[in-house]
Amino acid sequence: MNYKSIGHFVALIAAIEAVFLLPALLLALAFGEPQAVFPLLWTIGIALALSGLLFLLTRGARREFHEKEGLACVSLGWIVMSLIGCLPFFFSGKIPSFVDALFESVSGFTTTGSTILSEVASWPRSLLYWRSFTHWVGGMGVLVLLLALAPTGGQGFTMHLMRAESPGPSVGKLVPQIRKTARILYLIYFALTLLETVLLLIARMPLFDAVCIAFGTAGTGGFGVTNGGLADYSPAIQTIVGVFMFIFGVNFSCYYLILIGKIKNVLKDEEMRWYMAFSAIGIAVITFNIRAQYGTLGESLRHAFFQVGSIISTTGFATTDFNQWPLLSQAILVFFMFTGASAGSTCGGMKMSRVIMVLKNLRRNLRQIIRPNRVSVVRVNKAAVDEGILSNVNTYLACYVIILIVSFLLLAPDMPDMTSGFTAIVACFNNIGPGLNVVGPMGNFSGFSDFSKIVLIFDMLAGRLEIFPMLALFSTATWSHR
Amino acid sequence: MNYKSIGHFVALIAAIEAVFLLPALLLALAFGEPQAVFPLLWTIGIALALSGLLFLLTRGARREFHEKEGLACVSLGWIVMSLIGCLPFFFSGKIPSFVDALFESVSGFTTTGSTILSEVASWPRSLLYWRSFTHWVGGMGVLVLLLALAPTGGQGFTMHLMRAESPGPSVGKLVPQIRKTARILYLIYFALTLLETVLLLIARMPLFDAVCIAFGTAGTGGFGVTNGGLADYSPAIQTIVGVFMFIFGVNFSCYYLILIGKIKNVLKDEEMRWYMAFSAIGIAVITFNIRAQYGTLGESLRHAFFQVGSIISTTGFATTDFNQWPLLSQAILVFFMFTGASAGSTCGGMKMSRVIMVLKNLRRNLRQIIRPNRVSVVRVNKAAVDEGILSNVNTYLACYVIILIVSFLLLAPDMPDMTSGFTAIVACFNNIGPGLNVVGPMGNFSGFSDFSKIVLIFDMLAGRLEIFPMLALFSTATWSHR
Repeated sequence: MNYKSIGHFVALIAAIEAVFLLPALLLALAFGEPQAVFPLLWTIGIALALSGLLFLLTRGARREFHEKEGLACVSLGWIVMSLIGCLPFFFSGKIPSFVDALFESVSGFTTTGSTILSEVASWPRSLLYWRSFTHWVGGMGVLVLLLALAPTGGQGFTMHLMRAESPGPSVGKLVPQIRKTARILYLIYFALTLLETVLLLIARMPLFDAVCIAFGTAGTGGFGVTNGGLADYSPAIQTIVGVFMFIFGVNFSCYYLILIGKIKNVLKDEEMRWYMAFSAIGIAVITFNIRAQYGTLGESLRHAFFQVGSIISTTGFATTDFNQWPLLSQAILVFFMFTGASAGSTCGGMKMSRVIMVLKNLRRNLRQIIRPNRVSVVRVNKAAVDEGILSNVNTYLACYVIILIVSFLLLAPDMPDMTSGFTAIVACFNNIGPGLNVVGPMGNFSGFSDFSKIVLIFDMLAGRLEIFPMLALFSTATWSHR
Repeated sequence: MNYKSIGHFVALIAAIEAVFLLPALLLALAFGEPQAVFPLLWTIGIALALSGLLFLLTRGARREFHEKEGLACVSLGWIVMSLIGCLPFFFSGKIPSFVDALFESVSGFTTTGSTILSEVASWPRSLLYWRSFTHWVGGMGVLVLLLALAPTGGQGFTMHLMRAESPGPSVGKLVPQIRKTARILYLIYFALTLLETVLLLIARMPLFDAVCIAFGTAGTGGFGVTNGGLADYSPAIQTIVGVFMFIFGVNFSCYYLILIGKIKNVLKDEEMRWYMAFSAIGIAVITFNIRAQYGTLGESLRHAFFQVGSIISTTGFATTDFNQWPLLSQAILVFFMFTGASAGSTCGGMKMSRVIMVLKNLRRNLRQIIRPNRVSVVRVNKAAVDEGILSNVNTYLACYVIILIVSFLLLAPDMPDMTSGFTAIVACFNNIGPGLNVVGPMGNFSGFSDFSKIVLIFDMLAGRLEIFPMLALFSTATWSHR
């Protein structure tokens, strides 16, 4: 294990987070929010001190870098980032419990959007800005940003990092160099966020709200800046956010393909087609199912469109209390909580491409059980999928199920009821935000014990980092010197 | 596809079922139950007519027999068996709806024990006997019985059948010949059932009840003959049933090993150890968790022991309403609903050996992700597990999850609440019997629509036959002539 190079990386992350905190500090000064200025200053100081200390300790790190270092870098980096990120909430006294503050910070960075707060309207705006900005950083990934900025290490090194942080079963390089790929991804991300902000401004949303909600949409996070969330805004604003939730659930390489004029490839993409088909069917069934509650078909279509977009992209905004919907609509939403949208987007969940691979692999294997002497390959987008990736997807699925079960047993002593407990885990693990009943769109996570919150914090991180980096932390194989 | 040999097999099953119905008919005559005599007579007549017709149509069947014929034989055989088995309930008017009667019959043969009845005390005893006897036949499997009795076909032929009907990831042959293996299994099964009946008689249970409850325990089914189920009997009787539920959850090859003096192998068996460890931990935690409800620790231990045995062996008897237990205890029971007990027993669920393989395979694959250049094998009982079996277990797990999800979405419009709906599916799919809330131990399944019942009927059959035979029915690969 190459401890030094991991320490070096954590130092970089702490330094970059100090830079990220500066705009929040400037806002606190501009808005005249003394209760936020010192907490932010302290946090920046701690981040810089930690970073400096680690740089000193890890001077002369060897360049050797394997899968296990990549996995450890990602998981430790995210944990340190969350620990630092929670300090402004804690120091300001706005969240008096450290575990609660950490929950909120992890929920931000992992783009979950689950909250322990019932009231945010009275918060200093600089802290609300920071809370929403964590979504934006977490959505595309801080290590990907680091790769885009700092030319550290060779190709193998960056590949290991990118693979460990990027969502989806395999990493698609847009261009041969990883660094260029990371830059293109961040440019598209930035441009789309800007576009949404401008459209929201045109729809007469206040600038501060527009920026924060755009951060929440882009990272598919879900934190709001008002107590009522998206229900507090006009239908026009809700529709813009709804459209952008779908947009941020698309694989970003599709936008790159559109930019270089290969629109045909995008329309033929299997994941894209499944994503659109699932969404369309979900919206149609829910619209029909909830029409009695909203009077007109148009109104129920609006809510169905927004809520399907919000859940399938794992954002978690809500314009209405879907706890009051019929169970069929709720069940469809729970189903989308698991699938998520496309790989290579900012969304959470299993990702459509994994669902496709699991189903196609299944069909292949079933056919092989019926007719053992035939051998065939699994094809996605007409290309044979590597058996290694298929086995990896199966391992992922098994881990996924086991983490769900273990979390359920650990949370059981503390659950208000089975549905609340189960959907709390599902919402955190898939980085959605709200679940059902007590943790529904109008509820929050404050009722859980500290122990349960720590379980949910693990689930959020495991969900965002797609399980393996978090499990690697607990494996002796990661830490042994052999 | 060799249709003739499948038809031949279905004919044999119909004939054997006519024989099985005879004791019930004799009981109806002995007890003087005219409302049961004619329905049973009619059913026997229909079974014989169908059998005769099929024998005539399938004369001269070729001896060619592949996996797909084995799978189709098993699934069609079980469907026909259930259709014939439900006729006495339907003809007698005790269950006026045909779908309800079929649900009860499938629940019997698949050893699920879910019921649509709230009242059985007024039933003719001959019909109650038939209802419990279906558990006993379904537990060890009618095709295994057929193999034990009729020397039809060659070795490959019998192996395909045995593999498709036996529970567990792989079939353990006790002796080289399959036919002898099947006979030994049925002898052990019969002897243990007899032993339980005798012990129950000693504990002063009425003879009729003792026989029926022994059938229900042996097949790990769960139908009772009184309205209150096992809660109607003395603690001594409950304890005997409790012990035997654990006994019937053990791999039957262990009993064979004990018979031939190889007790050491049994004690070293990994599946046996996991089964005992899981049960012991579950009993300990639940005893502690429910002690406030039962006053003494002894009393809560008794209920915890019985209920863990009932759920882990997928029997489904209840001495108390575990709906009233704390959520932690309920969550542990739901967990055991999924695991089930040992492969090669009469229980349902995923089976311990599959859980072991999934976990060990997972650990192997995770280590391979952390250190890609190491290759290792998965070992159970110190022997390397064939990669084909591991891939088969993964396919099984993926199918399992998908069937759960699809069933959940299909049942959603009809669910009284999420927990009732979800546990109804889990209880049927794993062949347990009761779930939670509306379908809890004091409730029943009569509230569901016919459509939902048909979904649950499919789940029960898919659970008992371990998915693949039922899925093969819907695959074009099974029916194509290529």
